[in-house]
Amino acid sequence: MIRFESDYLEGALPEVMQALAETNFVQTPGYGEDEYCAAAAEKIREKCAAPDAAVHFLIGGTQVNFTFIAAALRPHQAAIAAESGHIAVHESGSVEATGHKVITLPCGPEGKISAAQVRSLVEAHWADATHEHQPQPRLVYISQPTENGAIYSLAEIEALSRACREKGLIFFIDGARLGTALVCPGADAGLRDLARLADAFYIGGTKLGALFGEALVITNAELNRDFRYIEKQRGGMLAKGRLLGVQFGVLMSGGLYERTAEREVALAWRLRRAFEAKGWPLYCDSPTNQQFPIVPDAVLARLAEKYSFSDWARVDENHRAVRFCTSWATREEDVEALIADIEAL
Amino acid sequence: MIRFESDYLEGALPEVMQALAETNFVQTPGYGEDEYCAAAAEKIREKCAAPDAAVHFLIGGTQVNFTFIAAALRPHQAAIAAESGHIAVHESGSVEATGHKVITLPCGPEGKISAAQVRSLVEAHWADATHEHQPQPRLVYISQPTENGAIYSLAEIEALSRACREKGLIFFIDGARLGTALVCPGADAGLRDLARLADAFYIGGTKLGALFGEALVITNAELNRDFRYIEKQRGGMLAKGRLLGVQFGVLMSGGLYERTAEREVALAWRLRRAFEAKGWPLYCDSPTNQQFPIVPDAVLARLAEKYSFSDWARVDENHRAVRFCTSWATREEDVEALIADIEAL
Amino acid sequence: MIRFESDYLEGALPEVMQALAETNFVQTPGYGEDEYCAAAAEKIREKCAAPDAAVHFLIGGTQVNFTFIAAALRPHQAAIAAESGHIAVHESGSVEATGHKVITLPCGPEGKISAAQVRSLVEAHWADATHEHQPQPRLVYISQPTENGAIYSLAEIEALSRACREKGLIFFIDGARLGTALVCPGADAGLRDLARLADAFYIGGTKLGALFGEALVITNAELNRDFRYIEKQRGGMLAKGRLLGVQFGVLMSGGLYERTAEREVALAWRLRRAFEAKGWPLYCDSPTNQQFPIVPDAVLARLAEKYSFSDWARVDENHRAVRFCTSWATREEDVEALIADIEAL
Amino acid sequence: MIRFESDYLEGALPEVMQALAETNFVQTPGYGEDEYCAAAAEKIREKCAAPDAAVHFLIGGTQVNFTFIAAALRPHQAAIAAESGHIAVHESGSVEATGHKVITLPCGPEGKISAAQVRSLVEAHWADATHEHQPQPRLVYISQPTENGAIYSLAEIEALSRACREKGLIFFIDGARLGTALVCPGADAGLRDLARLADAFYIGGTKLGALFGEALVITNAELNRDFRYIEKQRGGMLAKGRLLGVQFGVLMSGGLYERTAEREVALAWRLRRAFEAKGWPLYCDSPTNQQFPIVPDAVLARLAEKYSFSDWARVDENHRAVRFCTSWATREEDVEALIADIEAL
Repeated sequence: MIRFESDYLEGALPEVMQALAETNFVQTPGYGEDEYCAAAAEKIREKCAAPDAAVHFLIGGTQVNFTFIAAALRPHQAAIAAESGHIAVHESGSVEATGHKVITLPCGPEGKISAAQVRSLVEAHWADATHEHQPQPRLVYISQPTENGAIYSLAEIEALSRACREKGLIFFIDGARLGTALVCPGADAGLRDLARLADAFYIGGTKLGALFGEALVITNAELNRDFRYIEKQRGGMLAKGRLLGVQFGVLMSGGLYERTAEREVALAWRLRRAFEAKGWPLYCDSPTNQQFPIVPDAVLARLAEKYSFSDWARVDENHRAVRFCTSWATREEDVEALIADIEAL
Repeated sequence: MIRFESDYLEGALPEVMQALAETNFVQTPGYGEDEYCAAAAEKIREKCAAPDAAVHFLIGGTQVNFTFIAAALRPHQAAIAAESGHIAVHESGSVEATGHKVITLPCGPEGKISAAQVRSLVEAHWADATHEHQPQPRLVYISQPTENGAIYSLAEIEALSRACREKGLIFFIDGARLGTALVCPGADAGLRDLARLADAFYIGGTKLGALFGEALVITNAELNRDFRYIEKQRGGMLAKGRLLGVQFGVLMSGGLYERTAEREVALAWRLRRAFEAKGWPLYCDSPTNQQFPIVPDAVLARLAEKYSFSDWARVDENHRAVRFCTSWATREEDVEALIADIEAL
Repeated sequence: MIRFESDYLEGALPEVMQALAETNFVQTPGYGEDEYCAAAAEKIREKCAAPDAAVHFLIGGTQVNFTFIAAALRPHQAAIAAESGHIAVHESGSVEATGHKVITLPCGPEGKISAAQVRSLVEAHWADATHEHQPQPRLVYISQPTENGAIYSLAEIEALSRACREKGLIFFIDGARLGTALVCPGADAGLRDLARLADAFYIGGTKLGALFGEALVITNAELNRDFRYIEKQRGGMLAKGRLLGVQFGVLMSGGLYERTAEREVALAWRLRRAFEAKGWPLYCDSPTNQQFPIVPDAVLARLAEKYSFSDWARVDENHRAVRFCTSWATREEDVEALIADIEAL
Repeated sequence: MIRFESDYLEGALPEVMQALAETNFVQTPGYGEDEYCAAAAEKIREKCAAPDAAVHFLIGGTQVNFTFIAAALRPHQAAIAAESGHIAVHESGSVEATGHKVITLPCGPEGKISAAQVRSLVEAHWADATHEHQPQPRLVYISQPTENGAIYSLAEIEALSRACREKGLIFFIDGARLGTALVCPGADAGLRDLARLADAFYIGGTKLGALFGEALVITNAELNRDFRYIEKQRGGMLAKGRLLGVQFGVLMSGGLYERTAEREVALAWRLRRAFEAKGWPLYCDSPTNQQFPIVPDAVLARLAEKYSFSDWARVDENHRAVRFCTSWATREEDVEALIADIEAL
């Protein structure tokens, strides 16, 4: 079985594994208070041109999302997300488990929400005489790229940021696959933009070459107050925090993170062109490492004998949208084999 | 600086690192549904003689504790722990953050609670006419070894188990350093005993040779129902779950886990004997890899120039109890150096 | 100002006030363990033909909803409600504050959901390979009448009950205005039906002649276990619980509750006929004590000089749906005055 | 049976009942936004000399406590209370159910904590290198009078207030029986003092002549932000909020609240003198409406044939401390009967 169902099927980039091996016997303090974490945080601050940002290394994306949201909101406040947003549909109600509602906004297959939607929602809340009987919208959550691989343009992120600042909202960006949104065709929003426009965002490692780990960047100092207490309380503080510092130290050096993303994206585009050549429409326009062709059921059954992929959405009686992912570890020969098999269908 | 302040100062056993490297490019499904996890779980079930037990691999100890407790209790129910228990004092209120009180029982410096204490507490609860106005005690939490390195004897664990069963309580054992309690002088409770006597317990990896990871063993099937939902919800489900399966597969093979623990314990006893030879009393009787000498402040200041250790408790105006830990990675020459320096004081 | 904006604008029925005055100096134990509560509960059990049901008296509707839901669900489980359901839109996220997601189903202006919708939702959940990454649907919440005054037929409630039992769901009915649904035109589901078909429901007092108070009837004994702990924990247990027992004792005697509801409904239908006669369409078909005419904005401005009503929904650029409520205290002359003013517009 | 077991055995003062009856048919908006609440709040602000204070009327004491605490704390923060404090022992873990630990301080039978204890606790927290692994103490909860009827002197409250301000803590006073602490022998802290020294406190109505209801006074404006959302979310916002406004309007006029308290206290002191005359020691020195004699078991058995009282604490093999309460409704003849029976024993 050749696997394309997700981008967390393998371990980590050889450079990451090597750094872990080389530092294996170095003694450091625990809980992220070591020199590797300090150095990796400093590299991230530099790349973000955010010298005052706080950087925290957590283990996984769900954890970053609910920990940051729990730290940022008061009990009556809610997060706003696209109806297909990860916190709305794939985190087992983890935000609700911290006491907060996720208010969802309708979105197309690309999974994006707009500044206009956010403004309308917030204005409607405050205009309603009974607003105290409803959760108060307070934080906007987006992911870049979205759940379905689409990216927000710089203009869209700027508009969301402006809406948040005007309406007194916190702007938080989930970057589980952020690298791919930095380098893909059409990308125009860089790390410095995110650091300038969001109150917090994270740079995902798990799906971009690390064994595991996400780097949360908090640029709004008020939201960083006592964050480590809450990180510990919610299980996100790794005893051997240095493991995260070592990994991000490597990823953030010499352009490794970006090169890894570029490779993922390039392989994904080969698949995309093969799908298009075959006449399979795309469920949504993803320029990143996830591709979502709409394929006849019968064909899927044949492909599934040799390849794994994720079921995404039923489109009509005979067609489904499925997801193929590439990762840092995807082998070119596997991509070529899949393309050849598709052409031969 | 030679570090003895904790047992999570380094990475992982070479065998573990090698297994991670060897399996790095193997493709597996995510979220612990891979063959490595299945195989490691099977090994654990065998070692525990618990063929029906469920085994879940989580990232860290705090996470296991609050996730299992949140899954096991209804909203009005409370956990019972020693007043020095880890969930009572060192997890940032993570159990309370899931909505549950931790009821504490007094304990000596060894950090142990007794079946008699548990019985009294529960009987007092139900005898009180206003018991509905108090959290209902429902789960007994102990750690083996305790926070202060002491161990429960088999007889003590059997008594606690009997008390729990008679009183309708869940019995949960935190095994962050469980290996050391299996092999240390005086140890008489094995994995099979824990599996037979507790409803759930975990086998700690982080402090016993793994990079990170804890294996939660749930022998009470009712408490395992839907556990994976809650594991995901609370951030404990690693995307690349296979990393945990690979590590525990190695640790649970060929006696590696026990050998690692034996080495930790043996080195700790060398320190213990040096403390005793020096005339430093021990704050508590720990037969495991943590040792707690009571040392004059002036001496501590001198030791701190070369060695790190943890401050534990002020004993009198001029003396403190401090903690020295050994780990899988502690070097014999460092132990010898420390002993020589103590002797030379 | 003559007020029609809600049905909790006044105090309580004279019979209720008199009973409170008459019993004012009687000494009783606190927290609902008094004879008045016992007697009122027994009357409710008789009316429901549910001799084994547990009856708890709580203070208000929001409190009953979140307390029962918190008591009934495990942490990963969710409630299902209409998208216009009270717990989804008007309780400030109180269910989420207990840790649970409210999954909403689309509904028309009547605010009803169907057994088919529930089945589809639950089947989709379990068919999804990633269901552990989503909150588990476990409880169906409806209100009778709905937020918008519509009622479920007996057949519809039976179908929902069947769906819940087949799918392992808890069926809970919010009866804040239940009386009106028992007596209005078209009503065919009685208290005995609810007791037979739901796991729990409540009989609202606040909006039907009591000063305050709701009677929660739990017919599923398993869901009643330890309920009083959770009632206390969430602030729903009144110290002078007897106040609730006294009130429900009166309401449940001699048909007072039903007569009160009949009067509310009869007055509401007078308004309804006046709206229809004026050619104002109804936003939804409510046979109960709330009526929702769609009225031109200019007309509303004039009405608002003399009458209060609730803004409900903007229908188009020039029309809004508004709510007029009648209550046990609504005076016939006020209804007549409003009708005359409408006719004269 | 003549009942002395608590002070919530009867309904309400005749003046309160009359005011409810007189206003029964007046129409008002719901949720506390009516003129009765506004007027009662204004009276309270005047009595407190706190023109800018926010006043909220909630239903019961447990609800005020957990709602205010939930509104005031961030997720990692804890409340500090006496080990016998109401939130620590008699509210079914309601504070923990909102996610927060209650850190308890040892106290004598009077149930008081001191500024020195608070300072030590907070200093120890911040001095501990691992403080991020512990809940952060952030709010001091006391009750005036305490659970056991003792009162804090003005000097003690001033010292606690100073400690809180110096250490950045919120100071919250539970006043379930506040009236009795304002008027009893030795009382020297008035409403103006509490308003000046605490961030928030409440004036209890349930136990001082109201049917039910507590008036929460928040003098720290920052802590009042969005409080009504949270009040609604936690079930504390009464639909017919005017019922609370009407009651407090009466209680706060013409000295009724103080007169009621004076009467309660005077009757309690008659009992106290009878206990002392009999040679029964007092479990603690309560100058308010609760008295705690230590009585031989055999005597208690005889008294229990005719009188109810609360079991409080076992003192030795043959003696128990029990509680006798007086209330606004306690009849002089019942007090005289009890005294006569004691004398005759």
